[in-house]
Amino acid sequence: MAKAAPIRTDSHEIAKRVRDGDVRAAARLMRNLDDGEPAAIETLRALFPHTGNAYVVGITGSPGAGKSSITDRLIGWYRKQGKTVGVIAVDPTSPFSGGAILGDRIRMQDHALDPGVFIRSLATRGSLGGLSRATSDITRVMDAMGKDVILVETVGVGQDEIDVASLAHTTVVVVVPGMGDDIQAIKAGILEVADVFTINKSDREGADRTERELRSMIELRHVTMPMDHDKQHRFSPTGPAMARSDDYSWEPPIVRTVATRNTGFEELAGAIDRHRAHLEAHGGRLAREATRARAEFLAILRERLVKSALERLGREQGALDELATRIARKETDPYALAEDVAARLR
Amino acid sequence: MAKAAPIRTDSHEIAKRVRDGDVRAAARLMRNLDDGEPAAIETLRALFPHTGNAYVVGITGSPGAGKSSITDRLIGWYRKQGKTVGVIAVDPTSPFSGGAILGDRIRMQDHALDPGVFIRSLATRGSLGGLSRATSDITRVMDAMGKDVILVETVGVGQDEIDVASLAHTTVVVVVPGMGDDIQAIKAGILEVADVFTINKSDREGADRTERELRSMIELRHVTMPMDHDKQHRFSPTGPAMARSDDYSWEPPIVRTVATRNTGFEELAGAIDRHRAHLEAHGGRLAREATRARAEFLAILRERLVKSALERLGREQGALDELATRIARKETDPYALAEDVAARLR
Repeated sequence: MAKAAPIRTDSHEIAKRVRDGDVRAAARLMRNLDDGEPAAIETLRALFPHTGNAYVVGITGSPGAGKSSITDRLIGWYRKQGKTVGVIAVDPTSPFSGGAILGDRIRMQDHALDPGVFIRSLATRGSLGGLSRATSDITRVMDAMGKDVILVETVGVGQDEIDVASLAHTTVVVVVPGMGDDIQAIKAGILEVADVFTINKSDREGADRTERELRSMIELRHVTMPMDHDKQHRFSPTGPAMARSDDYSWEPPIVRTVATRNTGFEELAGAIDRHRAHLEAHGGRLAREATRARAEFLAILRERLVKSALERLGREQGALDELATRIARKETDPYALAEDVAARLR
Repeated sequence: MAKAAPIRTDSHEIAKRVRDGDVRAAARLMRNLDDGEPAAIETLRALFPHTGNAYVVGITGSPGAGKSSITDRLIGWYRKQGKTVGVIAVDPTSPFSGGAILGDRIRMQDHALDPGVFIRSLATRGSLGGLSRATSDITRVMDAMGKDVILVETVGVGQDEIDVASLAHTTVVVVVPGMGDDIQAIKAGILEVADVFTINKSDREGADRTERELRSMIELRHVTMPMDHDKQHRFSPTGPAMARSDDYSWEPPIVRTVATRNTGFEELAGAIDRHRAHLEAHGGRLAREATRARAEFLAILRERLVKSALERLGREQGALDELATRIARKETDPYALAEDVAARLR
């Protein structure tokens, strides 16, 4: 197989600084990756062999479930254990991403001043796949920086967010008592990625009922998963990239937390640790990383091929707009056009 | 430019049946498109010149805002005007997609028995981009069937859902009084795609305040949009596919509805009609269809190129898994691998 271009010395130097924990170099690299700079991608390649040590925990759930407070308490918990923490907030309502009310933001200041914590937020806009690509890249940089644990906070509705959650080794789904309709929404996508459930605000009425409902959903999961996998196949010619075939034997535990009173976090961290041990004992960690690598590779390949296809055909931004207008006018159809372009490249 | 393969006679025949309104042929075609059958794509190509007549209305908003009830009332309204309606439910909590409590489902039966209404639901799982591709294809089939209006109901959180909403000519964003935090979430993505706001459950306390908040957000939109566009560019090498540069001059109106009492729907339908007239008067309808065509073409091209790249390199499902495992083991990195594969194709 042909070799990719060798990595230049200056990229190796920046990579070295990031690995030494240089916060400024890391922040600049993340910005440049966002901008798609080729030199930044080269640096990421240089970092790649030094990743794989961080444990990635996804925190997901409906708006208002208390994901940010859970993340905040988990940061505190891991810091007390002497572990360094990276935080990626993909949730637009998260105080970490700047979209919070004043009180929350003041609370977060504790961690913002702690050199053992590195926080980065991401906007939920951009093109298809951009969000999980960007999150994946940032995770790798924090990993190379030597962070022990990386917490990724996402809103648990929407496919792109579910895919982001799927980057994690362990995904915690946060629910609150008395969600009613929202349980339905969870059924339709989040359940597949849940490794641990936490009922937050569990001092509220209805926590027992919520736990019962979750338990019956978990039992049903064994029955319905094969069908779900089938559906994923149907949408994707490349197979169920995010499917979790590695851990049918894992029964997601349900823990109870009250983030405002900092109770239940020993139990939650314990459940995350047990899931980690389970993955490692059964080869599931490598399997998850392979699943993630597969999706990452295909996304990069896709971008790469389209970019060079458009370049080689001399299709500048304006030419593409003209093609789009021809499709909109029904002078041609997008399938025929894609076929033409692919044929020209042979 | 090379010509795409000609469309075979039997595909034309199925297309003819769909255009004549054959519900069974249309449903079968949609299933086969889901399965990615080449013959189904051929039929879609045959239908393509006969699309572009339906007016597509997106209904989006947070879970619990009452999107399904709004959709239900709009169906009723358009049917009274003698118009035929297609409905695509991408919202997992929608009664149309079967994820509802009994009462809702019974209510929906009215429309299920009406031959002037065609309802189709889609799961919010699948690979990146699969959801908007599938929705786009189904919209085209309903369009070719001769439906006058197509209502697309989506959950308004998550990038993929926002992209689905962007397929519409007019996007209605549903909010409810006293949302608090959720207004934050709306700011971060939904606002850009909103053409009409409706405050549902507007008989509840706080409707005036919600309207004031929406008004100030709409005013701010003019100021913040350029930055948002810039962010989209940063994630996407192919530009802001879903950006709405065509209608800065349109000020989204805010209407009030109470779906349970069927009030406000003349006003809502009126606002949709005014937006349609505005688009058509300023060339915005073609511009939106071109934006959509551009995204559609690039998505199809991307799939097409990756598929043939993997085929030509003899990478079967198993070989791809092996590559992924090599990446996960840090023996190579996904960027270098994508570069290798792209270089081999030159």
